[in-house]
Amino acid sequence: MQRGGPAAKNFSKDDVRVVLVAPRNPLNIGAAARAMANFGFTQLRLVNAYEVAYREARSAVGAASLLASAHEYANLADAVADCALVVGTTSVGHRELQHPLRRLENGARLIRHARGPVALLFGSEKFGLSNEDMSHCHWLMRIATVDVNHSMNLGQAVAVCLYELSRDARAAAAQPEKLKVARAADTEQITAMLVEALERSGYIKPLTAESAKAKVRRLVRRLNLSNRDAPVVLGMIRQILWKLDGPQHS
Amino acid sequence: MQRGGPAAKNFSKDDVRVVLVAPRNPLNIGAAARAMANFGFTQLRLVNAYEVAYREARSAVGAASLLASAHEYANLADAVADCALVVGTTSVGHRELQHPLRRLENGARLIRHARGPVALLFGSEKFGLSNEDMSHCHWLMRIATVDVNHSMNLGQAVAVCLYELSRDARAAAAQPEKLKVARAADTEQITAMLVEALERSGYIKPLTAESAKAKVRRLVRRLNLSNRDAPVVLGMIRQILWKLDGPQHS
Repeated sequence: MQRGGPAAKNFSKDDVRVVLVAPRNPLNIGAAARAMANFGFTQLRLVNAYEVAYREARSAVGAASLLASAHEYANLADAVADCALVVGTTSVGHRELQHPLRRLENGARLIRHARGPVALLFGSEKFGLSNEDMSHCHWLMRIATVDVNHSMNLGQAVAVCLYELSRDARAAAAQPEKLKVARAADTEQITAMLVEALERSGYIKPLTAESAKAKVRRLVRRLNLSNRDAPVVLGMIRQILWKLDGPQHS
Repeated sequence: MQRGGPAAKNFSKDDVRVVLVAPRNPLNIGAAARAMANFGFTQLRLVNAYEVAYREARSAVGAASLLASAHEYANLADAVADCALVVGTTSVGHRELQHPLRRLENGARLIRHARGPVALLFGSEKFGLSNEDMSHCHWLMRIATVDVNHSMNLGQAVAVCLYELSRDARAAAAQPEKLKVARAADTEQITAMLVEALERSGYIKPLTAESAKAKVRRLVRRLNLSNRDAPVVLGMIRQILWKLDGPQHS
């Protein structure tokens, strides 16, 4: 078994049914659809949705067709009938839960390894999933928030869950790309020209010139310039030197 | 260095400044505040926010005080002045980016290991961060969505980023808790009573009784009953047997 690894080979986002149970706010339904489109999920199901026009929700930016093709069900049993795994989401308030409860990080991994269609249930904005709703679930999943008394917004909860299902653990472990650092010859040329500019402008005094030069050399190394930036910096100093030269020769 | 591991020891969520640059919709500002409260972040900053009353946004459920204490700035330089690391978020549309671009999974890890305050920038709903805004950033971060032409909703993007910053990789790797399975004595008693019920009800015929019993025994084992469920199932079958007995003795 992969440990928090990338999506399982057989995992298809089309196998995930996002099921909104008794949602009330059309804007939240639209937001859920938008998050689905963002992360590449396609199957939206609504159970007992409040009878207002949600199919044209303005919040479904980029997800109008997804929203238009959403399926409506009169009860939860029908909405999950074709699913092999039914997972409920909960913010876990005061209620005693009769189900295994997994953190999203963990539950998403199990969902990616599930065989067959998976229903991912989200309850109403106000009450979440009822005990009756939960009894249809194999297990429950929660987003680990700091304050269990305040649940997440429905659209945001859907976004976070689908993000985790889409997450690539290999990307997390990737090391920052290494910029090619400038060659020593270039940093030394920068050092020399900067010292010259500082001498001409009077920043470096003849008496302490030697120690000042060493200081500048160390500073230039600490900048850790890339081989792309080194010529730019060189050009800047060269131009300043040219200007510093100006008055002396004019 | 930890590889996608839990939050670094020194990481404090209070060190993260969530900076909304030129946000337009008060509901989105409220939603961002709500996500911050959900995940335990406290420092909200607004740059050049559209002059409408956002401080009372209804969408800031559970985050009213956080929203009330948000700081406003006239320009981005002031808003990030105290930060050691400035990270811009982008959906990466058509624009050529002049910055290192990291996936959220990766960037969040670097942020958790940063020393000192970190600014996390979100651009306006319509245009995202401008090139000018981005020039204040050390690097950029993107949420890996499937369709780069459709960006995420601002409140949802904030929620997903803060979720990733709060994510616990150890939880992802956790193995499902093992339920204690029923003892063989209990499953065998279930088998025996179920066989009896099936014989009395006529499901098992005398001619094929032996093979049927073995079938039932295998099926009961496949149910993999927990030691909590075994007595419940036993009670159910016992009651059914009692009822099956009824008519014969009355």
